[in-house]
Amino acid sequence: MNKLEERILKNGIVKEPNILKVDSFINHQIDVGLLNDIGKMFKERFDEEITKILTIEASGIAIATVAAQYFNVPVVFAKKVESKNLNKDVYETKVYSFTKDREYTVKVSKDYLNSSDKILVIDDFLANGHAAMGLIDLVNQSGADMVGVGIVIEKGFQEGGKLLRDKGIKVESIAIVDSMESGTIKFRGV
Amino acid sequence: MNKLEERILKNGIVKEPNILKVDSFINHQIDVGLLNDIGKMFKERFDEEITKILTIEASGIAIATVAAQYFNVPVVFAKKVESKNLNKDVYETKVYSFTKDREYTVKVSKDYLNSSDKILVIDDFLANGHAAMGLIDLVNQSGADMVGVGIVIEKGFQEGGKLLRDKGIKVESIAIVDSMESGTIKFRGV
Repeated sequence: MNKLEERILKNGIVKEPNILKVDSFINHQIDVGLLNDIGKMFKERFDEEITKILTIEASGIAIATVAAQYFNVPVVFAKKVESKNLNKDVYETKVYSFTKDREYTVKVSKDYLNSSDKILVIDDFLANGHAAMGLIDLVNQSGADMVGVGIVIEKGFQEGGKLLRDKGIKVESIAIVDSMESGTIKFRGV
Repeated sequence: MNKLEERILKNGIVKEPNILKVDSFINHQIDVGLLNDIGKMFKERFDEEITKILTIEASGIAIATVAAQYFNVPVVFAKKVESKNLNKDVYETKVYSFTKDREYTVKVSKDYLNSSDKILVIDDFLANGHAAMGLIDLVNQSGADMVGVGIVIEKGFQEGGKLLRDKGIKVESIAIVDSMESGTIKFRGV
C-alpha cells in the first residue's frame, strides 16, 4: 500500500453512493508533502520524454504543478468557460460534469500546445473519464504527442479508466478504488 | 530587479487599458521554476509563524502550493460558487470580479480554518483588492490570525494595495507595477 492509499484509508470519507471525499488532503485543503510523494511516483511511472504537463482547473492545478517539478517542464491548465463564442486562437472542447450536472467549454490557447509537444495529462480524479477525454481531445487538436494520463485517484468501478486504456492510452493512477461498498474501500492490486 | 520583474519585462504583454497579460508564465502556462523563486521570496519576507496558506481558485492555487513547500504547511483554497444557499459548515463571503463583471460567493469549509491558525493569504494578482478582502473576511470569520498577504503581481496604480496596507495588513508583492503607460512597465522601487 502506498502513501496515498494509506492516507485515503485514514482520512477519506465515503459518502453513498460512490462518493469519496478527500477534501482534507487533496481538493480543498492540500497536503503538499503528500503531493510531492505523488509527483515522484508519476515521474517513476512516466520515464518517457515529456515537454509539458496539461491539466484542467481548478483542482488539477496543485498536483500538476508539484509533479512538474520532477519533470522540469511547464504546466498548462485548460480553462473552463461558459461562453460558446468560438475563438480562433484556442483549442476548445466540451466536457460534461456529472458532479455539477452541466456542460462546460474547456479551452487552451494555441500558444501553449503545439505539434512538437509531448504531453502528460495529470488530474486529481478519474471517474467517467469525461474531463480526461476532453483534455486528450485538446492535445489531439494541437497535433502534440499524447504520452499518457497520470491520475491521483481512479474510481475503478466507473468506466473512465477502461475507456482510456481501451484506446491504447497509458493511464497510471496512484490509487485505484475498486469498491467502496458499505464504506469499506478496496484498492486494486493491494 | 528580481527574476519576476525581469520576466514580466520579457514576456508580459500590456493591453490597454491597464491589462497586463502573464498567461505565458503565470496563469495559463505556468513556469514552475519561476514559481519556486517566488515561493522562496515569500518565505524570506514572511518569517512569522504560519500554519496555513489560504488562496482562491483557480489561478492562485499553483503559486500557493509551490510556496507552501517552503513554509511546510498545507494550502487551503477557497471555492467560488454561484449558489446562494447558506451552509452552516462553511465560511462564506462575496467577491465582485471586475474581469468577469460578476459577483461570486466564495467559501471555505469550517474544518480547514480555525481560531488557532496563523494564515498567510497568497494570490497571483492584486488590483482592486476585492479577492484579497474576501479571503481576509473568511480568515476573520474563523477567528484565525491574519499574518499577511503575499502577492505575485500588484497593480500599484489600482487601490487594492493601499486599501489593505491602510488597514494595517502586511502586504508583500514580488512585483509592483506602478504604471504601464504607452506599454512601458515601471516597477515600484526598481
